[in-house]
Amino acid sequence: MPTQNLAAVILAAGKGTRMKSQQPKVLHQIAGQPLALFPVQWCQSLGCCKTVMVVGHQADRVKETFAPYPVNFVVQEQQLGTGHALMVTESALQSFNGTLLLLCGDVPLLREETLKQLIDAHRTSEAAVTVLTTHMENPYGYGRIIRNSGQIEKIVEEKDATSEQKNITEINTGIYAFEAPLVYELLHRIGNDNAQGEYYLTDIISLAQSSGLKAAACVLQDPRECMGINDRVQLAEAGEILRQRINHQHMVNGVTLQNPATTYIDNTVTIEADTVIEANCHVRGASHIGAFCHVETGSVIDDCQIGSSTRIKAGSVVEQSQIGEQCAIGPMAHLRPGTVLHGHNKLGNFVETKKAVLGPRSQASHLTYIGDAELGSDINLGCGTITCNYDGVNKHKTVIEDGVFVGSDCQLIAPVTLGRNCLIGAGSTITKDVPEDSLALSRSEQKVIKGWRKRKK
Amino acid sequence: MPTQNLAAVILAAGKGTRMKSQQPKVLHQIAGQPLALFPVQWCQSLGCCKTVMVVGHQADRVKETFAPYPVNFVVQEQQLGTGHALMVTESALQSFNGTLLLLCGDVPLLREETLKQLIDAHRTSEAAVTVLTTHMENPYGYGRIIRNSGQIEKIVEEKDATSEQKNITEINTGIYAFEAPLVYELLHRIGNDNAQGEYYLTDIISLAQSSGLKAAACVLQDPRECMGINDRVQLAEAGEILRQRINHQHMVNGVTLQNPATTYIDNTVTIEADTVIEANCHVRGASHIGAFCHVETGSVIDDCQIGSSTRIKAGSVVEQSQIGEQCAIGPMAHLRPGTVLHGHNKLGNFVETKKAVLGPRSQASHLTYIGDAELGSDINLGCGTITCNYDGVNKHKTVIEDGVFVGSDCQLIAPVTLGRNCLIGAGSTITKDVPEDSLALSRSEQKVIKGWRKRKK
Amino acid sequence: MPTQNLAAVILAAGKGTRMKSQQPKVLHQIAGQPLALFPVQWCQSLGCCKTVMVVGHQADRVKETFAPYPVNFVVQEQQLGTGHALMVTESALQSFNGTLLLLCGDVPLLREETLKQLIDAHRTSEAAVTVLTTHMENPYGYGRIIRNSGQIEKIVEEKDATSEQKNITEINTGIYAFEAPLVYELLHRIGNDNAQGEYYLTDIISLAQSSGLKAAACVLQDPRECMGINDRVQLAEAGEILRQRINHQHMVNGVTLQNPATTYIDNTVTIEADTVIEANCHVRGASHIGAFCHVETGSVIDDCQIGSSTRIKAGSVVEQSQIGEQCAIGPMAHLRPGTVLHGHNKLGNFVETKKAVLGPRSQASHLTYIGDAELGSDINLGCGTITCNYDGVNKHKTVIEDGVFVGSDCQLIAPVTLGRNCLIGAGSTITKDVPEDSLALSRSEQKVIKGWRKRKK
Repeated sequence: MPTQNLAAVILAAGKGTRMKSQQPKVLHQIAGQPLALFPVQWCQSLGCCKTVMVVGHQADRVKETFAPYPVNFVVQEQQLGTGHALMVTESALQSFNGTLLLLCGDVPLLREETLKQLIDAHRTSEAAVTVLTTHMENPYGYGRIIRNSGQIEKIVEEKDATSEQKNITEINTGIYAFEAPLVYELLHRIGNDNAQGEYYLTDIISLAQSSGLKAAACVLQDPRECMGINDRVQLAEAGEILRQRINHQHMVNGVTLQNPATTYIDNTVTIEADTVIEANCHVRGASHIGAFCHVETGSVIDDCQIGSSTRIKAGSVVEQSQIGEQCAIGPMAHLRPGTVLHGHNKLGNFVETKKAVLGPRSQASHLTYIGDAELGSDINLGCGTITCNYDGVNKHKTVIEDGVFVGSDCQLIAPVTLGRNCLIGAGSTITKDVPEDSLALSRSEQKVIKGWRKRKK
Repeated sequence: MPTQNLAAVILAAGKGTRMKSQQPKVLHQIAGQPLALFPVQWCQSLGCCKTVMVVGHQADRVKETFAPYPVNFVVQEQQLGTGHALMVTESALQSFNGTLLLLCGDVPLLREETLKQLIDAHRTSEAAVTVLTTHMENPYGYGRIIRNSGQIEKIVEEKDATSEQKNITEINTGIYAFEAPLVYELLHRIGNDNAQGEYYLTDIISLAQSSGLKAAACVLQDPRECMGINDRVQLAEAGEILRQRINHQHMVNGVTLQNPATTYIDNTVTIEADTVIEANCHVRGASHIGAFCHVETGSVIDDCQIGSSTRIKAGSVVEQSQIGEQCAIGPMAHLRPGTVLHGHNKLGNFVETKKAVLGPRSQASHLTYIGDAELGSDINLGCGTITCNYDGVNKHKTVIEDGVFVGSDCQLIAPVTLGRNCLIGAGSTITKDVPEDSLALSRSEQKVIKGWRKRKK
Repeated sequence: MPTQNLAAVILAAGKGTRMKSQQPKVLHQIAGQPLALFPVQWCQSLGCCKTVMVVGHQADRVKETFAPYPVNFVVQEQQLGTGHALMVTESALQSFNGTLLLLCGDVPLLREETLKQLIDAHRTSEAAVTVLTTHMENPYGYGRIIRNSGQIEKIVEEKDATSEQKNITEINTGIYAFEAPLVYELLHRIGNDNAQGEYYLTDIISLAQSSGLKAAACVLQDPRECMGINDRVQLAEAGEILRQRINHQHMVNGVTLQNPATTYIDNTVTIEADTVIEANCHVRGASHIGAFCHVETGSVIDDCQIGSSTRIKAGSVVEQSQIGEQCAIGPMAHLRPGTVLHGHNKLGNFVETKKAVLGPRSQASHLTYIGDAELGSDINLGCGTITCNYDGVNKHKTVIEDGVFVGSDCQLIAPVTLGRNCLIGAGSTITKDVPEDSLALSRSEQKVIKGWRKRKK
């Protein structure tokens, strides 16, 4: 629920030259989501009443990506420094009165607790501006935090730092809490009288203090949280850190991961206790995996709901499917979108499904394609069964009623219905509906020419 | 061979609350075996004449798991401390006279050599009790070893330690060697006059010394060996350490591992020199892989014997099968239990076998299911061959004799026999036995309707 | 282009006992190439006018491997030390006058820049001999560099070192630059008057100086570069370091790697920016991947050219194929050598191709084998299509012209041609050419026996 005294600005205008990409930096992904979605999500959970995203480079692509979220966009036409980036948000936030967070679209590893601490520290100290700082083993390149009697005095950039100041390990993370509209008054007084002609947000600290306002600093314990992404090496590093964090939480919750370093679970996935996930599995999107499941190595699960005690065997790919309890899938099965298994189903090796609903206990053990089909319960599809759903123009539906047994290597030419408990002989091409309880087949007689092969040789 | 003066107690009664599991902690697995199986195996190789496992939480499940092993079970109804856990084994070991090891069901990484050193140190020093200790960089939480002139004096728990004692890095691993039946006499004198009302085994050190007996300490060099498993994070860490140890040994033996960090080989597997195993392969159970084999990435080998110079190609799954020399399997083949390949066989992509015996040089290169079948030598099964072994009620057998050539997409409806050197035409449904040297086929004539498609459009 | 004043000797005669291999050490591979190929490649790019490889153990196998490269072989019959190994190259290099590099066949991680620095240092200092040195945290076992007033004085082997010398961390990497033919004159004066009866190359330093010549040392910053491979543990470590180096460069170039620690890209592969490669993919040989491609987890790409915006889905194996732009391959497809896709093609799950050319937009979505086939554009092969290319003796060709639609589960018995825009009914066995625009099918009538199954039960 939004609170009226908290808002946020997310800086997402940069190009990210070192990404060497035709895609804007903030749209690159870790753990299955664009970098700038992380701050958007924190704003939602912190209850920001307004979230303003400053866009610039490829603004349209960024806007399009975040259009589904409660975000207001402000375009920064020219990139004249972080102070300028914040300044352009003034009119969008003109009616806002309260604490304003400044977040970065390329800093995805902050934890919500850290932001809560920043807000708390900011409000408790009654500061006009509070900067989030951290200690870096190697602070080279970062703005250093200059303190006086423990209180923050100013931020000095690398290039302006004395050699003594360069030894300071406390640095500016670029994340701030401000009081608004006060911050905008201060911003107007920041100059761009410097070599780059840019407006530096860091100047706001001294400016606040010289105006008799309070500036504070809140120290972040784990410097990895404020890691910014500037190239694909850092993208991979951030991905690894996030992976460790997500996987650690699943293990704490009672999920066994064979090798957490090679298990790839999106932020959005939920898994119940006593499920085992082997190495090099990928679980994505809004997937939920129930309890006592076992996901074997190399499997990919994308946007699926999986009931308890189901086994996804090695190398299976399941997408946008609902899989009931006690199913056995694979190895090497491919469940495409729209697959619904009602439970106790078996889909074996080299089986593909698509828009296919299977009632309880129905199964296809090998080399089968079930597409655009509705199956009842207790059905057995023999090896090599194919639903011929496509005539080159349209897709048609196959209906198979309870208890049907389809022999091996049959083609079911849709639209077609196989009646309850019927039996289809192996090798048949079924073009017409089959009545219940009947036997249907299309088969040529077996002919034998004795000695033929001997003669041929 | 058991020696009459060595026995062991394995503590396996705990619940393991932090595992968040409906399964008792000691049944969770690393490298393919339950945690408490590791101490059971050490006891076997050390030659313990008796191994007593103390069970409690879900005692029946634990007993059932270890029933196949030479283990005696004692149920600890209430968990009143480690001293109490040992006490309940008294009657089970009443006739035993010698060195008694105390092991933990959740400490799987000890090496047998370490236990031998403990036993040696214990016997050499003629101690009544010898505790295995180690040095921890961060000893927080562990019982500290208090020494006096180098000799162990007592063990002090974290909560009872002075700040000076807290700086001691030598800690109690919880692993001991005792003299029995002496240890039981001492145990009877341990009180439970403390806040928890528990019997602390650590009290036995001072008790021994105050009785004029000798207590000793044996220092374990690598503290990772005594790591206890309390949650799934530690389970994964222990799995990784064991994986490194197993894989290191295979590499020393002459096996090439492309990436040992992502190669998963059970403790029980043997592999001959000059075999190469690519990344993310899993070799399990009682598998043996011969020399000069090559196992490609993503393959799973479970309980298989594989002859030399065989290649298992990418993403194949082979289970409980015997694979001869110079075979080529996969990529993406699935050999199910009961597959026997006599050598020089090729099973290509999307091929499944089950209870199938193939003579030398017989092959199936693509999209084939061979189930409940007996094949001679030099057979070629065309793409899409299916043994129809299941009629909905029973499984039947297919016999294919030497030199048979089966054309593509044939169904062999079992029970059926294809005689020596016969040829089956593509697309046939074979329902009756085929004589040797003959040609068999079931085929409808090809009809052509000219211009049909043009008219349809 | 070779320069006349630079040549190299590569030592590749050793057995490598600790590899426990029937293969000579220098033929073991990392990143897809034999260890001794690395120095051969540096020699080529540095422009050596002559590269002499000293072979000994299994000389024929080593010669055979490097026969395709511009390398001269000299056989060292007996292995009498590194000095001796260089001595045997004298006649092969008798007409050479200039800088002679000494490289090792089992030291694959040096970078070309390092060798350039060595050559520069050697020439600038006008030394007769320059040794490449480095600093090791743990120098145990290595020859130590003894310096006097900063200048190298001699190299002392571990066993001859005083305890003070053992503290020196600067060690001999075994890599040198010499002036030839001068070096051979010095070599003749090296004795073998020592316990092993060997000729030690390290003696050449003092020998040069006592002859009034200059000896120099060039320090390598990163000691990992000069790592020698002596067993499979080191082979795996070197593989990991090289993997990190290769993958880092791809990321810097704009390629996204989901997990660089589990991405296996050969030295010889090129990838364009904005391509994404998921975890546990293997890209080998002379492969090139265009821009905006996406390679999903578990895929293997071997010697392929892949156009831009193509997606290789999970678990696919593609070998020696050319894949055009905007194709979708897999998941679990297998493209064998000789596959050529002209663009906008789809090959779905459980599809295999071999020597198959597909025109633009032609596709096969499931369970299909296309071998020895030539397909035009806009073709749709139904599920279960099989080109029956093999009659047990010869392979035959299938030709499918533009716009053909093949229904499910058809066998095309080659040699056969399907004419432009024809349609093949599902379940047909096509044995004769099909005219354009026509419908062809071979099908038995569907028969129904009502109540049959009820009676059977």
